Parts: sequence; structure tokens; C-alpha cells
Amino acid sequence: MLPAMSLSDQMRSLAAEAKCASRAVAQMSTADKNRALLAMADALEQATPALIAANAKDMETGRSLGLSAAMLDRLKLDEQRIQSMAQGLRDVAALPDPVGRMLDERIRPNGLRLQKVAVPIGVIVIIYESRPNVTADAASLCFKTGNATILRGGKEALHSNRLIAETMVTAGRAAVTGFPEHAIQVVPTPDREAIPALLGLTQYVDLCIPRGGESLIRAVTDCSKVPVIKHYKGVCHVFVDREADLEMATSIIFNAKCQRPSTCNAAETLLVDWPIAAEFLPKAAAKLWEKNVELRVDTPVRTVLAMKATPPEGKLVNAKPEDWSTEYNDYILNVKVVDGVADAIAHITRYGSAHSDAIVTRNESTARQFLNEVDSATVYWNASTRFTDGGEYGMGAEIGISTDKLGARGPMGLDELCTYKWLGMGTGQIRG
Amino acid sequence: MLPAMSLSDQMRSLAAEAKCASRAVAQMSTADKNRALLAMADALEQATPALIAANAKDMETGRSLGLSAAMLDRLKLDEQRIQSMAQGLRDVAALPDPVGRMLDERIRPNGLRLQKVAVPIGVIVIIYESRPNVTADAASLCFKTGNATILRGGKEALHSNRLIAETMVTAGRAAVTGFPEHAIQVVPTPDREAIPALLGLTQYVDLCIPRGGESLIRAVTDCSKVPVIKHYKGVCHVFVDREADLEMATSIIFNAKCQRPSTCNAAETLLVDWPIAAEFLPKAAAKLWEKNVELRVDTPVRTVLAMKATPPEGKLVNAKPEDWSTEYNDYILNVKVVDGVADAIAHITRYGSAHSDAIVTRNESTARQFLNEVDSATVYWNASTRFTDGGEYGMGAEIGISTDKLGARGPMGLDELCTYKWLGMGTGQIRG
Repeated sequence: MLPAMSLSDQMRSLAAEAKCASRAVAQMSTADKNRALLAMADALEQATPALIAANAKDMETGRSLGLSAAMLDRLKLDEQRIQSMAQGLRDVAALPDPVGRMLDERIRPNGLRLQKVAVPIGVIVIIYESRPNVTADAASLCFKTGNATILRGGKEALHSNRLIAETMVTAGRAAVTGFPEHAIQVVPTPDREAIPALLGLTQYVDLCIPRGGESLIRAVTDCSKVPVIKHYKGVCHVFVDREADLEMATSIIFNAKCQRPSTCNAAETLLVDWPIAAEFLPKAAAKLWEKNVELRVDTPVRTVLAMKATPPEGKLVNAKPEDWSTEYNDYILNVKVVDGVADAIAHITRYGSAHSDAIVTRNESTARQFLNEVDSATVYWNASTRFTDGGEYGMGAEIGISTDKLGARGPMGLDELCTYKWLGMGTGQIRG
Repeated sequence: MLPAMSLSDQMRSLAAEAKCASRAVAQMSTADKNRALLAMADALEQATPALIAANAKDMETGRSLGLSAAMLDRLKLDEQRIQSMAQGLRDVAALPDPVGRMLDERIRPNGLRLQKVAVPIGVIVIIYESRPNVTADAASLCFKTGNATILRGGKEALHSNRLIAETMVTAGRAAVTGFPEHAIQVVPTPDREAIPALLGLTQYVDLCIPRGGESLIRAVTDCSKVPVIKHYKGVCHVFVDREADLEMATSIIFNAKCQRPSTCNAAETLLVDWPIAAEFLPKAAAKLWEKNVELRVDTPVRTVLAMKATPPEGKLVNAKPEDWSTEYNDYILNVKVVDGVADAIAHITRYGSAHSDAIVTRNESTARQFLNEVDSATVYWNASTRFTDGGEYGMGAEIGISTDKLGARGPMGLDELCTYKWLGMGTGQIRG
């Protein structure tokens, strides 16, 4: 019997195989990639009983780990969720292939023709938490863009994730001759040390995309030697300027907070310009209290609302210092009075997470100042922060929303899963 | 007397001031930035005696550190080099400002107008070796693109670098009201621990660009928590296919190796397709030996050249295994016979540095295979690898040549010193 491979050898072998597979995926035609994706979708549907059985083991693990009911729900696969994973693959198959897209072309005075073309990045490690559907989503987006993927989900989802990836690869191989079997791999061990081992392999891994909570992303960033595109928390703001349409402002903050509070593009803080505070705050609060939103406020806001409104029990509290930089993902909203757009920008600069921030105003020059000076992935004027999303941006799908500045910023769709290279085509040009 | 600041506090303060300055630089108009750059150019020229005096101290340090004559020459500032630094700033002033450039625009079905616009990255740390002119070059490119710079040159160049930066900042402040004094800073200590201290400050530093030898770049990558765009070594290849024009191939390899061997885009390895080896190798070798190029060869090349050519003393030697991945920066060239384009690609994949590689062939389908499958920043067809350069690409200037895949790949000019943000402009849109 051979001795067991060490974890670091195991990761090295996994990553080296991914690198090799990435070269093959990069050369696949769009038609072949789409055929493989459609076959994968069918195969996932056909594997429903097996997937549910594998997932049952994970649910058992999840319960023994004491996961909350919400976490267990995220972990669960059922017929409908498998169907929806399969549909996701069909949607990705239908999207245009960005590989080979010409981004720039120039002919130099010496006749050298330079073309800047989109090409796959190579090997992408995706690190995520509980939900097994991310396995299929992320793998399909990376595959469509000619990349090989190494997936690392939560340890409680390992059986589900492995079977999803195996089903996809088996279907791909059956559908397309030469489909590289290591194009989609799941890290086969729950060992936490697998992550630093994998993210030290700069010769094989080109990019890591962590998706999840703050502590996960910090841990990944701290140990990684390969580039990381962070999909970090969203502490998003809505600033209601003194020249805002207050009806519009109420509708925007209500949507930004309440339409889906669990998302990173939901608002966590409302900033209100002082001249309109007395008029606007009671209206906005009344609307937000319809959904039982807890308001965490500064003294001026408290004063206005105590005088002019009837807060439900426990829904008007004093903000603590750390609240201003907290992502609640819940029906909780910070509210603060500021002195004009510059003060609002200063607050956002200090406490925001550079994700999505909005101004509501009728004044174009105020809006321009906000759009220019707020250094966030997306800045809105008279629109809800909830629009920061690949689908809403017309990208068709997204692997997440980057809060980084290199490689991708904001929604990260298929185009953003590519890098580029330059092609220089000549007739014998040499440098003088 | 106050106690001295710890190194980590000193770096934190430097970086925090840079972050603050970066917000101001980002908002400067193109006209103000250009006025400042022209004033800086004049000021550098006027400071010639002071700069030469500061540089004399550095030359003294350099000699006491036992630097080679070549290194001392790189360190030296004289009137002509100062003049040329100043001219560099004037050239940067004349280039178009990429900040605010619209990269994409789309109006969504709900009427939301999305604009993707180029914006500065923020705070950029540049780490480089001996030559003080890099201080002015790098600072001016970052400043033109609205970024703040923290410069860290070699310890032997500290007096020169500090005075260059101070001169630029003083001139900027005199020329433009509100010019932020911390827009251009030099790390004031030669302490090696300054680098990890600075590159751990993810809240202030947005990007690090190291320029220099392999060990410098590895050390930076290993310690950095902020994104790094590596400007890594160039192990560049020229592959001469069986269907090459052999005159053209000789001219290209001679240019790629000999026109300026010290550069990263110079060729280090010549790959020759076997059917033309007997005819091509003696011609190419004769030309390369005119410049006394040492050829490090495999057995088939040695056999051909021993039979058909007259090698100068010591200029035909057997390649050692490590030679294939060595950047010589000298009149030395590896030569190997390969079996067709696939074999050439396999060699480049294994030993190359993903910088610049070229094929010489008349056959378009062979060329396409090479262009597609060689995963390098630039791939050439019938042109010299020496063209990989911001100036040659029409970028006007470059901060270096990235061998990374995120943020920038290949020559990194003004556009590549920007990131982007999305602006979403609406009329009250909310998400349904």
C-alpha cells in the first residue's frame, strides 16, 4: 500500500491538474462549451435522487454541528433547487462567450498590428460557504469563460458539492470529446489547512474569489499568495439631500432597506440633510416601521422622531459607534443627520465599504459631487442601491460583486472572469 | 521631547496621509495636474546643483556598500539625466488624461443609465531598485492618473529620491492651489521592515507595483496583503517554424537578442523547428556571433553547428537544465530544436515567464495556434519581442510591463493606472 499523500502534495497535485485542464478549456469552442453546459444541466436533473441522498448526509453533519435552522435551509437540496441549478447552467449556456472578444486594436506607424483580446484567466479557486448551488453556478461561469475551477465550499456541504462537480464533469466528458476531467474540481478534504496550501501555489493558481462573511474573506486574504478578488461586505448608504424629492427618497430608502435585507446591496445607513430632516424623517420612519425596521439613530434624529412620530416598541434606539460600519443583513437601519453633501461623503468615506451608495437630489451639481467623490464600486443618483447585481446590469449572470479595484469592481460577470492578452502581428518588424 | 514613532506607526501615518491626499488628487482637473507637472519639470532643472549634491552622498554610500561600476552608473545623476527626468514630466503632461473616460454605457429597460468610468486607483506603492529617475517617472504617471504615490527606492538612492520628491511637491504646491503635499512621498527610512509594515495597511494602500529583480518581487509578493502587480522577469522566446522566411527569422532573433539585451523583452531562447534546423541554424549563429553572442544549446543544435559553422571560442556551449528558465539580460542565448509548433508551445509553457514570445512563420494556421495557445502577456507573429513597451504600443509612457493577469497585463500605461467605477443614474428607480 502506498503511503497517504500529505495535504500539501494533495493540493499541489489538484492544482497542477487544474492548470493543465485550464489550457484545454481555454481552447474549447463556444459550441463545445455550450453543449457541455446543457449536458451538465440534464445530468444534474437526472441525478436528483443521488444528489438528495448525498445532501441528506450533509444535512446530518449540519445538524450534528449544530447549524441554525437558517443555515440548514441554505444547505438543503430538494427537487426544486436542483431544477433551478440546472436552469442556471442553461442560462449560462445562452450567454455570449467573452473569450476572444477584441477589446482594442491599433496599427502602429511601423505597420505592426496590435490586438488586445479577452482570454481566460486560468485556474480560479472559489471559496464559499454553505449553499451547494454555488458549486454549479460558479463552476459553470468559470467554465463558460474558459477557466478551470477549484471549488471549496463549507465542510458541511462536502458530499453535495463533490457529487455536483462529479456529475457535471461526467456529463461534460460524455458530451464533448476531449473534455478535460480536471476542469471542475472540489477540494476533497474539509481540512482547514487546505486553503493556505492551495493559495500558496502561485505557479498553478491564477486567482481566488472568496465569497462569504467578513472573517472568511479576511482569513483568505491573509494567507493567500495568489491574487484575490474580494466580495466583501456591503455597508451601503442612501443620502437624502436638501433638494431631494422626498416621495422619491422615501421610496428609495424603503426599497434599499426592505426589498431584500439579506443582500450585500441593501442599505444599512440613511443619511439625511439637516434642512429637510424635520419634514422627511417622520415620513421615512413611518414607512420603514410598516416593515418593523429597527432604527438606530443619532441624537438629532431621535429628537425629531420623538417629537413627530410614534416609534413602535424597541424600533427607535441610539446608535452605538460600531453600528455605523455594520452590515446587518436584517431589518435594521442606521439613521443620521448630516450637514450637506460634503458631510455625507465624509461619513461614507469613513464608515462605508465601497460597495454601493446613493444620493437622492434634484440638484445635478450636488449629484455630480457625490458621484465623483464617493469612491465606491457603484454610486447611484436617484436610484436604489439594490440594483448592484449582474442581472440588473445586463451581464446575464454574476459570480459576485467585487469590492476590490483590480480585475473587477462591482458586479463580476463573464467579461470580468477574463483577462486579456496582446497579439502583435507583423511582417518582419524589428525595433530600431 | 516626544518619543520617536515606531516604524509601524510611521508607515501608518505615511499611508494615511497618502490616502487623504489621494482623494484630493483624484478630484484635480486635467489642467491643474498638467500645470503642476510642468512646474515640477522646471523645478527639477532648477534644482540641478542640489540634486547633484544629494546624489553625491548616495554615490558615496554606494561605493561604501561596494556596488559594481554598473550599479554606480545607474545610481548617478548628472545634468543630462536631470534634464531627461524633467523632459519625462513634460511628456507625461502632454499625454491625454484617462480619468473620467467612459468605458461603457448602457440604459437598462427600467431607464436606469449605467456608466462605467475610469477613476484613479488610490494609493500606489512603487518599490524599485537603484535608478533615481524612476522616482520622477513613476510619481508623474501616478499623479497624472489621479493617484497618490509612496515611493520606495534602493537605500543607496535615498537622498536623491527624497530630494526629487520634495522638489516635485514644492513645485506642485506653488503652481496649484490646494495641491496635496502628501501626493508624492518617499519612504523616509532604509529599514527593510518598512515594506511589510506598509504593505499590511490594506485600509490605506490600494496597490503595490514592485519593479526589479526576481528576489525583490518574490519578497514583496510574499509579505504583501495589498494587491501586487508584478513586473517580473522576461524569459522570452522566438520560435522559427518550418514555414518561416529564414531571412526574416534571422533578422527577428538578432533584433530580439542583440538590440538591447538588458531589457525584459529581449529574447533568451531561440526554438528552431527541426526540418529547417540544418539550413537556418548556421545562418542565425553566424549573425549572432557577429555580436559575440554565447549560444547555450541542446545536442541537435550542437551537432548541426559543429558540422556547419565555426563557433568563436567559448560561444557554443551545452545548455544546463536551469538555463532554459534563466533571464540573462546579456549576450547569451539558449538554442533548441523542437518538433513543430505544439512542441514549441509546450517548451514555452514549461520554461517561459509569460512575458513576450514570438513565432516566425508564413503559415497562418500555425501562427493562430501559437497566438492562441501561448499564454503570455504579448504573443507576436513575425515581429520582434522587443516591441513590448508602452511607447511602442502607443501608450506614450509606461510604469512597467506586467506579467500578471489582473489589473494590467503587458505594458502598463496611464489607462492601466486607473480602475473604474459604475455610475447609476435614475429617476427614482427601485428594484421590483
